[in-house]
Amino acid sequence: MVPLWTEIGELMPMEPTSRAVPHAWQWGDLLPLAQESGRLVPVGRGGERRAIALANPGLGGRPFATPTMWAAIQYLCPGEVAPEHRHTQNAFRFVVEGEGVWTVVDGDPVAMRRGDLLLTAGWHFHGHHNIATEPMAWLDGLDIPFAHGIDSTFFEFGPEQVSSTETPDRSRSEQLWGHPGLQPLSQVARPAPSSPLAAYRWEHTDRALADQLALEDAGHAGVVEPGHAAVRFANPATGADVMATLRTEFHRLRAGAATARRQEVGSSVWQVFTGRAEVIVGDRTWDLAAGDLFVVPSWVPFTIGAAEAVDLFRFSDTPIYERLHLDRVQVAGQEQ
Amino acid sequence: MVPLWTEIGELMPMEPTSRAVPHAWQWGDLLPLAQESGRLVPVGRGGERRAIALANPGLGGRPFATPTMWAAIQYLCPGEVAPEHRHTQNAFRFVVEGEGVWTVVDGDPVAMRRGDLLLTAGWHFHGHHNIATEPMAWLDGLDIPFAHGIDSTFFEFGPEQVSSTETPDRSRSEQLWGHPGLQPLSQVARPAPSSPLAAYRWEHTDRALADQLALEDAGHAGVVEPGHAAVRFANPATGADVMATLRTEFHRLRAGAATARRQEVGSSVWQVFTGRAEVIVGDRTWDLAAGDLFVVPSWVPFTIGAAEAVDLFRFSDTPIYERLHLDRVQVAGQEQ
Amino acid sequence: MVPLWTEIGELMPMEPTSRAVPHAWQWGDLLPLAQESGRLVPVGRGGERRAIALANPGLGGRPFATPTMWAAIQYLCPGEVAPEHRHTQNAFRFVVEGEGVWTVVDGDPVAMRRGDLLLTAGWHFHGHHNIATEPMAWLDGLDIPFAHGIDSTFFEFGPEQVSSTETPDRSRSEQLWGHPGLQPLSQVARPAPSSPLAAYRWEHTDRALADQLALEDAGHAGVVEPGHAAVRFANPATGADVMATLRTEFHRLRAGAATARRQEVGSSVWQVFTGRAEVIVGDRTWDLAAGDLFVVPSWVPFTIGAAEAVDLFRFSDTPIYERLHLDRVQVAGQEQ
Amino acid sequence: MVPLWTEIGELMPMEPTSRAVPHAWQWGDLLPLAQESGRLVPVGRGGERRAIALANPGLGGRPFATPTMWAAIQYLCPGEVAPEHRHTQNAFRFVVEGEGVWTVVDGDPVAMRRGDLLLTAGWHFHGHHNIATEPMAWLDGLDIPFAHGIDSTFFEFGPEQVSSTETPDRSRSEQLWGHPGLQPLSQVARPAPSSPLAAYRWEHTDRALADQLALEDAGHAGVVEPGHAAVRFANPATGADVMATLRTEFHRLRAGAATARRQEVGSSVWQVFTGRAEVIVGDRTWDLAAGDLFVVPSWVPFTIGAAEAVDLFRFSDTPIYERLHLDRVQVAGQEQ
Repeated sequence: MVPLWTEIGELMPMEPTSRAVPHAWQWGDLLPLAQESGRLVPVGRGGERRAIALANPGLGGRPFATPTMWAAIQYLCPGEVAPEHRHTQNAFRFVVEGEGVWTVVDGDPVAMRRGDLLLTAGWHFHGHHNIATEPMAWLDGLDIPFAHGIDSTFFEFGPEQVSSTETPDRSRSEQLWGHPGLQPLSQVARPAPSSPLAAYRWEHTDRALADQLALEDAGHAGVVEPGHAAVRFANPATGADVMATLRTEFHRLRAGAATARRQEVGSSVWQVFTGRAEVIVGDRTWDLAAGDLFVVPSWVPFTIGAAEAVDLFRFSDTPIYERLHLDRVQVAGQEQ
Repeated sequence: MVPLWTEIGELMPMEPTSRAVPHAWQWGDLLPLAQESGRLVPVGRGGERRAIALANPGLGGRPFATPTMWAAIQYLCPGEVAPEHRHTQNAFRFVVEGEGVWTVVDGDPVAMRRGDLLLTAGWHFHGHHNIATEPMAWLDGLDIPFAHGIDSTFFEFGPEQVSSTETPDRSRSEQLWGHPGLQPLSQVARPAPSSPLAAYRWEHTDRALADQLALEDAGHAGVVEPGHAAVRFANPATGADVMATLRTEFHRLRAGAATARRQEVGSSVWQVFTGRAEVIVGDRTWDLAAGDLFVVPSWVPFTIGAAEAVDLFRFSDTPIYERLHLDRVQVAGQEQ
Repeated sequence: MVPLWTEIGELMPMEPTSRAVPHAWQWGDLLPLAQESGRLVPVGRGGERRAIALANPGLGGRPFATPTMWAAIQYLCPGEVAPEHRHTQNAFRFVVEGEGVWTVVDGDPVAMRRGDLLLTAGWHFHGHHNIATEPMAWLDGLDIPFAHGIDSTFFEFGPEQVSSTETPDRSRSEQLWGHPGLQPLSQVARPAPSSPLAAYRWEHTDRALADQLALEDAGHAGVVEPGHAAVRFANPATGADVMATLRTEFHRLRAGAATARRQEVGSSVWQVFTGRAEVIVGDRTWDLAAGDLFVVPSWVPFTIGAAEAVDLFRFSDTPIYERLHLDRVQVAGQEQ
Repeated sequence: MVPLWTEIGELMPMEPTSRAVPHAWQWGDLLPLAQESGRLVPVGRGGERRAIALANPGLGGRPFATPTMWAAIQYLCPGEVAPEHRHTQNAFRFVVEGEGVWTVVDGDPVAMRRGDLLLTAGWHFHGHHNIATEPMAWLDGLDIPFAHGIDSTFFEFGPEQVSSTETPDRSRSEQLWGHPGLQPLSQVARPAPSSPLAAYRWEHTDRALADQLALEDAGHAGVVEPGHAAVRFANPATGADVMATLRTEFHRLRAGAATARRQEVGSSVWQVFTGRAEVIVGDRTWDLAAGDLFVVPSWVPFTIGAAEAVDLFRFSDTPIYERLHLDRVQVAGQEQ
């Protein structure tokens, strides 16, 4: 038994004071490590994946980017197969460069290409294989630390080979769900908690962002703030986030634009896709380029500036807070 | 005062026995009438629209296609303007042929082209103008009879000229919401009861239907039943129907396919878009071609057969029943 | 086919202009009629119920209190049985005086006593029997006109005798669901569209209203407006209205109080339970006493004044409008 | 950076393997400790509360009953005041014995008596004061560990004295919301994420449980399983759990009854209220009496047997899992 009165300061602070710290990782450091692991570590049953996790320096050496989220660089060499398995953790992949890998989700082969967001929602079997002549590295995002902390994790092995070696340009999920505002009549009666669309293609994301800036140029509403276009990836069957625990977004800043100082309950991980960003998170400042990542812990204020135009991918744990009515946001210059 | 015991048979039948009857209208009859009205009747403030409504023969001469829905052919000559107004009735337009009209919805100009579905949800200002050298005719669908029956109708006049004479290829609503699975971050916090997407373009609908048939060819799930592809037009912000009272769908049948005999609570109106359909509704049978329309009253069994491939647009009042837990469907060969 | 331009005035008015008219019925006129029917008309299979419907004078002689709602006085003599049946129409009974009848809902016997609200939601079997030595009259409310207008009605006969002749003080539904804020763990996983609680007892309603006035006396929030306490009967499993199409409420006005002038989309029927009310609906004014009923058509302004304290039961079709986003309310002195 | 392949076994187990362990605490041990703290530790600003937390032996000495939930014995001497504050953590109190304390929630004084459940949902100001001549001890339950783990905590001091010293029998929240199936019309338009009812009184809980057993005696549905009655405390405005992160229940077992072996994702804390329970959690077995507590970690199987009749209060973190679609339950003898 432990008395409250000695613990209250740490357990019940006046506002969130995360052990996680603002931190950035350079792609130029991460990729060589992934390549080295490609030479040293085989991929297969047991270890399951060749993934190097970003460990937030404030979290005691654990492979957690934030208290709730896992972010890792996964690396797959030509001809390699990451065997099939499934787990209750929600997962996605974001491709900052390269192509040639197909991820097979419940038997549906999904091409992974530069700029794409690929989903593997909880309890779907999935494996990957690389049919190209080059290795491929990408970003994995999962809710592993959150699921671990609340003891909700189930895991099951699938076949050691991927269940389909087809390599179509578009997955079956895209054929069914990848049309704007259109739902397949055969599927609408059974909406699932996760998006039925396994791939969000770069060509659509890019065009959506360009359209918002074009609207701004024409004097119409659409951007989040001046010079700042952004989309949320959504479940086309419900409009909700792509998965119950993770939000995914893409942001584009014009040269010269900057985001308003912002504080949010919950944490986020950002990866620069193209261009350069001047990022301030709490008392840290970085100048980041393509592939670089940074984390924003809960309630730490942050801004992103663009000396030149910059594109950024973002994921966060916001749906957890919103669904539990714990969300709170404060933006400089806006009413609460 | 009226006793129940003499009324119960008509008011509380064993199953729905609509006064509306199965009926079909030929495009070859409708279009000349619309053209004639184009010569005789001006468009402008007061009459507001040059629209000829389909009157179900069972409904006592009222301009109601079914007890809940209005369907009309609207006709606009070159240079004409249908003045702006708004009403609480939900409305859409479906274009079976032609182009050259822009409908301006709350100031956003929306091109109307063959195969497109255009929305004007309740209480949005809207007007139309024809900039082409040819007249244009299209199908209007509204919930006028339903709204009339429950006394929910408000109406307000807007300007006599359309509030924007721009003629862009894509509307602003499409720039914001017309990207598959992507939501503009500036808009996601305020979902409305109606779709924020004003136009569903034929190129997307056509491709979605083709994709379903391609999946069937490859042995995968996707079609509603053999040879029958279908999509529902949806609100991308919520996944719900495009408007609270109206469902809109598009169906494609391969040559040789036929739909299973089906009974539904609620009524629907169908328009053949291309090809020929052999339609049976209750004890009526028709052979219908492009532009022809037919209605299915509540609970009347119907099937659609395709001697040659056929595309059909459909709208129905199903959301009313689903939201009030009054929906019921029976399909031959399926468990209840 | 019918042109819009000649119909638009009636079909699309500037605001709701119901054919239904404000009207009141005196209990002193209704009860003798019910008694007379008790002498002349047997109750049994075929006619099913001895119910005399209030026919709004604006609705062409149809037995409809409003365009959507049925209100009738049902009358059952000692020893009589109203046979079991079920229908998709939602129904309730409100008891303005008397006792001695049990309504049996899906086999659960529910006592009917003065001041109680009893539910028979759509598609539940139900019959009534009178075990007292006196006849009993009560108010039936249903969505018959609405269901009839949209062709959604199914009906099925049950046994000619009630399926249980037990006469418990409390129904099984009350034993399960009649405890404030408590849900039976065996039932929570399957919430239905209608309330699982078949009876809302006068003792609870009376106390809830008295509590609101006591809060007002003590200077605390709780009443709707000065001197006006009111409760909505709710589904304890969801907090929604008791049935998908009907709202039921109870209102209490202190002597000297009056409601603010109010306009609502949708119609309502009120019955005075005790006391006297000075009612103004549109251009009509009535002085009403216990048992008297009046209707408020859609968008017609109304106020209720209480020279002496008055209790009123009310039912309305508001859930239909709210679920379809067609609701609108305007209260004198309040911002829109 | 940390590789996945060395971590996967611990982070992604085949099923939940909580660090928390099954554990029980005897009321006979806890109460003297609380009494001792009553002699030694003052209550007041800074420490805020005299509460002794149950520390699960598997959680490294932290004052956490489970990975998500805090359970503590709070103790207040005659005349003492626990000052007002508010925090985003959700809290409740359950009273196993005693009376004389009022908790003041946003200015509303709420009596605390034996068998009552009292709510203090997140971000409501609350303080306690003891007006009796005896000290009082009770159980506090909060989501402190969960909120701490996800960095969502805000805290604010209120007045050092309680904002109302009134000691009414019923709180204002009960006057408004404590009537079965009745909602105050003045409040229904703004449902909150937490229950508006601050107190769930023992007399209602007791009667609801007795009613379920009476139904079982009469051969009707109602109990969870033979001899096992149970209620969930619910938000009367929505039917949801009383707070977004915590579920609260009360269980009654007849003498001779036992619960089926059950596994659930998520953890729970139980307190015996009256009688004796033979509890098996995983490989631990205890014989527990009034006031004794035990915890069930995620996915650890448990059964409760009653050699004599037993009443138990339970709280769990289940809403977190259900809202995030991470819930899973397995009951011996039931289909999945």
